[in-house]
Amino acid sequence: MKYINKKLTIEKVRIQDIAKKFGSPTYCYSYLQLKKNINNFKKNFKSFSPLICFAIKSNTNINLIREIKKFGLGADVVSMGELMMAVKAGISPKKIVFSGVGKTSDEISYAIEKKILLINAESESEIKEIDRIANFKKKKIQIGIRLNPNTDAKTLSQISTGKKENKFGVNERKFFELVDYCRNSKNIELKCLSVHIGSQILNYKPYEKMIKVVDRIINKINHKFEFIDLGGGMGISYEDNDKKLNYKKYSTIIKKFLKKHKSKIIFEPGRSIIGNAGILISKIIYIKENHKKNFVILDSAMNDLIRPALYGARHKTLPSTRRKKSSNQTYEVVGPICESTDKFITLKNFQELKEKDLIVMCDVGAYGMSLSSNYNIRLKPAEILIKGSKIKVIRKRQKYKDLM
Amino acid sequence: MKYINKKLTIEKVRIQDIAKKFGSPTYCYSYLQLKKNINNFKKNFKSFSPLICFAIKSNTNINLIREIKKFGLGADVVSMGELMMAVKAGISPKKIVFSGVGKTSDEISYAIEKKILLINAESESEIKEIDRIANFKKKKIQIGIRLNPNTDAKTLSQISTGKKENKFGVNERKFFELVDYCRNSKNIELKCLSVHIGSQILNYKPYEKMIKVVDRIINKINHKFEFIDLGGGMGISYEDNDKKLNYKKYSTIIKKFLKKHKSKIIFEPGRSIIGNAGILISKIIYIKENHKKNFVILDSAMNDLIRPALYGARHKTLPSTRRKKSSNQTYEVVGPICESTDKFITLKNFQELKEKDLIVMCDVGAYGMSLSSNYNIRLKPAEILIKGSKIKVIRKRQKYKDLM
Repeated sequence: MKYINKKLTIEKVRIQDIAKKFGSPTYCYSYLQLKKNINNFKKNFKSFSPLICFAIKSNTNINLIREIKKFGLGADVVSMGELMMAVKAGISPKKIVFSGVGKTSDEISYAIEKKILLINAESESEIKEIDRIANFKKKKIQIGIRLNPNTDAKTLSQISTGKKENKFGVNERKFFELVDYCRNSKNIELKCLSVHIGSQILNYKPYEKMIKVVDRIINKINHKFEFIDLGGGMGISYEDNDKKLNYKKYSTIIKKFLKKHKSKIIFEPGRSIIGNAGILISKIIYIKENHKKNFVILDSAMNDLIRPALYGARHKTLPSTRRKKSSNQTYEVVGPICESTDKFITLKNFQELKEKDLIVMCDVGAYGMSLSSNYNIRLKPAEILIKGSKIKVIRKRQKYKDLM
Repeated sequence: MKYINKKLTIEKVRIQDIAKKFGSPTYCYSYLQLKKNINNFKKNFKSFSPLICFAIKSNTNINLIREIKKFGLGADVVSMGELMMAVKAGISPKKIVFSGVGKTSDEISYAIEKKILLINAESESEIKEIDRIANFKKKKIQIGIRLNPNTDAKTLSQISTGKKENKFGVNERKFFELVDYCRNSKNIELKCLSVHIGSQILNYKPYEKMIKVVDRIINKINHKFEFIDLGGGMGISYEDNDKKLNYKKYSTIIKKFLKKHKSKIIFEPGRSIIGNAGILISKIIYIKENHKKNFVILDSAMNDLIRPALYGARHKTLPSTRRKKSSNQTYEVVGPICESTDKFITLKNFQELKEKDLIVMCDVGAYGMSLSSNYNIRLKPAEILIKGSKIKVIRKRQKYKDLM
């Protein structure tokens, strides 16, 4: 995205032209950015060519998943719905891993029927359930076991998943027990050790610790894991001054690990693939003066983008048209929903804003639309994909008849 | 709800029978409780028979709104979608008020076409927009102006709406300006002063302060308000030891106010009408042992009920079958979604739980289903209404084909 003649432009299309044609609020994705992210991700880990399973939960738009599939990526799914969506988008079941702490019997059965690569189990009960269903179906099922490495990802507590107080995975002692259990089962083939310590990680050191734990665990047992699933969690720069994850160091650590352990690495990135490829275009409905700050009321709300309300997340905010004049007002950018939580960001020293101006929130490609709702009976936004100067509607704006 | 022979029962139906027939997770509402809430609300304010406008945002199920309508209630709506839903449920437009800080031109036009009782405007820009549209349509429109009384509701900051730093309403100075503006407009009839200081209020004192402010403001201007809309916000007891709002005192304060100012009172209750009439039935998928606590993994998740993740809300949690044996374990009740935020409650000294047990979360009738989403491509729960021994499905469980 850049300004051309003061007009914010995504690839070759001006934001104002998108809003004029498709209305607002509208999610808009850049194909070029998506492609760049995928190619960078691949390049960073080229030396050991991992299986990259896109985390569907970050963005469930089938047309985007189809594009991602064309680059050879597989899918990380966490529910029957996501598995269906991945298969429908054309991703080969042989590239699909199923994660999650609460897979139901129906979900396990469905995954078995679809012959996916791996069910990454997260508890003793789940493994026993897989065993039971596999036995009933007279099938041998490939699974992974998710280890909780008790590693602090140094990220927000809400998106940390690899500490012992988190619900994910099993601890070391239980892991060994379950490896034994799997070896004694005629229905289970233990193919994978999986770990995932959290989301939006910008420092390679937690990953280093995590891999040390994995290394130590594998050394303790005589089991050949065909796959090591290192999860995702690679962070992106939401703020200009965010530091960047050092992929080179992370890759070096993994290469060192692979010299000792011959396994195929699986990654489950979501945010790092689609996060910065998406923006949300909104229009200012009203500007309301207040004693200390002015409220900028958008036509998008927490139902469209809940990350600020849910995690206190900040999304870089840009005007669609640059103006010289900057405002001495503090702008509090809010949505129209009747909750004080419905607030996006506070802007200081921002350019002067006017009613009907268009505002763009950046880096909303991941956990934006996928977490959206119909709260206040508001329609879900349209989704648009930009490829150069081409515009494709990849999900139509919801209609009231869909909700009544 | 009570236990009969150790089985949790809502009206005359056992929770386990509902789960057996309709699966889980399932929202379930008691007609009797709803009726009791409405009748109590009316009784509390009987002496001045207010217009009670149910806050649709708290629960958007059309069948529940139809039941509520039968008791003579109107609707408080905050979007075009909610206005459509209220009308579709049979509520007379003459009992509908439209609130919200960001009404779009389309929404204002639609409200004018539907001839609703009041558009409660929240900013100068909005009033000018109403004026412009009304002029274009050559109609005279009844409006209210929402005053921000700068009153602390002493509730959670996320649901406080009546302080000057909140986006809602206009301050005193602006209010006077806008009263003048309306008087000079040939398209606007200023009929109402509205206030709403927040949600889940359990102490009458903030209301007392709010009414003092309203009284002071009215005394300063020579304008007859046909309606005074006092909003909603009446809290309910989420915990057994929560204190109860003293309706009697609140009513007395209003009566005193009405002796000086002859107006019709409007209320906009949501939570106090439907909150404790709804429960969410979930099944335990797995129980996972941990060093200090056991994770109880339900088949419901933050997509079904987001209040704990969004506001840190606690919902009283009950087993469907009472057992004598209590557990010395701490239970952390979580959902299956791959986020650490997907956590409902921590239970200590609870009865021993087993996998496949049914768990009921109480008081989820308001802001439960209305805030639900399809995150992780999870289906929205079914909704059931219980009337004595009768069971009616008031919204079917979503199907995958609706999402693909």
